[in-house]
Amino acid sequence: MTPIGKLVVVGVGLIGGSLALALRDKGLVAEVVGVGRGRRNLDEALRLAIIDRAEDDYARALAGAGVVLVATPVAQMPQVLARLAPLIEPQTIVTDGGSTKQDVIAAARAALGAKFGRFVPGHPIAGTEHTGAGAAFPELFRNRKVVLTPEPETDRAATATIRAMWEATGASVIDMPADRHDAILAAVSHLPHLLAFALVEELALRPDAAEYFRFAAGGFRDFTRIASSSPEMWRDIAVANRATLLEELRRYRGQVERLESLVAAGDGDGLFRMFATARDARNDWLARQA
Amino acid sequence: MTPIGKLVVVGVGLIGGSLALALRDKGLVAEVVGVGRGRRNLDEALRLAIIDRAEDDYARALAGAGVVLVATPVAQMPQVLARLAPLIEPQTIVTDGGSTKQDVIAAARAALGAKFGRFVPGHPIAGTEHTGAGAAFPELFRNRKVVLTPEPETDRAATATIRAMWEATGASVIDMPADRHDAILAAVSHLPHLLAFALVEELALRPDAAEYFRFAAGGFRDFTRIASSSPEMWRDIAVANRATLLEELRRYRGQVERLESLVAAGDGDGLFRMFATARDARNDWLARQA
Repeated sequence: MTPIGKLVVVGVGLIGGSLALALRDKGLVAEVVGVGRGRRNLDEALRLAIIDRAEDDYARALAGAGVVLVATPVAQMPQVLARLAPLIEPQTIVTDGGSTKQDVIAAARAALGAKFGRFVPGHPIAGTEHTGAGAAFPELFRNRKVVLTPEPETDRAATATIRAMWEATGASVIDMPADRHDAILAAVSHLPHLLAFALVEELALRPDAAEYFRFAAGGFRDFTRIASSSPEMWRDIAVANRATLLEELRRYRGQVERLESLVAAGDGDGLFRMFATARDARNDWLARQA
Repeated sequence: MTPIGKLVVVGVGLIGGSLALALRDKGLVAEVVGVGRGRRNLDEALRLAIIDRAEDDYARALAGAGVVLVATPVAQMPQVLARLAPLIEPQTIVTDGGSTKQDVIAAARAALGAKFGRFVPGHPIAGTEHTGAGAAFPELFRNRKVVLTPEPETDRAATATIRAMWEATGASVIDMPADRHDAILAAVSHLPHLLAFALVEELALRPDAAEYFRFAAGGFRDFTRIASSSPEMWRDIAVANRATLLEELRRYRGQVERLESLVAAGDGDGLFRMFATARDARNDWLARQA
């Protein structure tokens, strides 16, 4: 791809920081400017050479920018996009890393007005439970998927640039309608996160929680890994994608009720069928990943 | 510990095979005899030098045995214990590796009669999602916990021998009443397994399942790892521990209903509090493990 020139990252955390590192490693950015609320995090990003410069003035940050990645929690995006709007120059492309797309697109449409076509909505499906600049690493996107959800107005050349940018990090890039993205991610990502948080919280609030945690082992550790994720980020996702997520929660409550019926009845055959279907499906999925 | 002499493993899978390998590595067994339903698995155990001899005759297997480990799925234990009962010699100690303890104790009491005192109920809290002799490895129990749930009649010297046996594998051994064991494991192990199976099964049965799985990533992989576990083993555990597990499922349904209310109301503060409590509790737990 053609080098980006100046990359501005708003929210230099796991996603934003890792993109900057990946592009720097490939020599695809001339300068990286970090913008964010937390001075301590920006200092850490400077120390780790993730960014060349921290900037709290949006105008100075955006002057001459090639690409701006907004990688804050999604609830902050309306405000961030509103601040960016008047500063988008003819060559500037704005994209994001939000885990929900319909709400971000609506916010971008409202904030950017006639410049909405310069905004390429995106979601790198990559992450760990760790947060902040210190968690960033350049290989985060390698062999991962990035979904772009361009709208009819989205500039095609801008979309092509953002696609090439993510491909340069080692990701494969897929285009998809925003509503389909939000429906799929609700089921395979947002729901599991909420379920893991809910399991750990319930245990944590028991008076004898310590004894339960004492006997928690590897199965528990992996099942709940995502319950160590950022509460702020996941609150925003849950609220942003609430209609679809609510549908997933209802379906899943149906599954818990089915488990209750099967266990109450001691229905070993029914339980075996459910477990075997799950095991086979998961193992098929794993085999396709390999 | 004093070497065991002849170790008989009924069910040479992940648990039974790993115990045999760990004790062999330490020179603590003179001979390992494998008993089991599946000839192919026993042949694999022979090939991997997990056992010295496969035996389908219980009398020949048990003659002169020091320790017998029953490591089959728990539903098979009543039948296995009934076959062992007449063959228990004065020096023979029987123990098990079942994930539920009250049902196994009841089965042992019924099957062993006057010899019930020679049975030491145990549960090594270790495992992976893999099964069979081929999954066994000698380090499985290192830094793991083994719970023993001796009853008033249980021979104290026998309990001490089984404790020393597990400690020799690198595990720490804890005594606990069987009902407390079953209550704690229902919450931190049995419930998460059922929840993971239920999540994957529901996705797998959707007409467009492939598209959902295509975008499942690392969070999904870890959350559902335990859904690759043995359907047979987990069916048996769910049925064996059904009263306690049902209570856990009811509590968890309450959590799903709370999630539905919070998401439906767009209650970001309530979601944040739940997520933050979970995140903090899990991180504290991880820090204590380190």
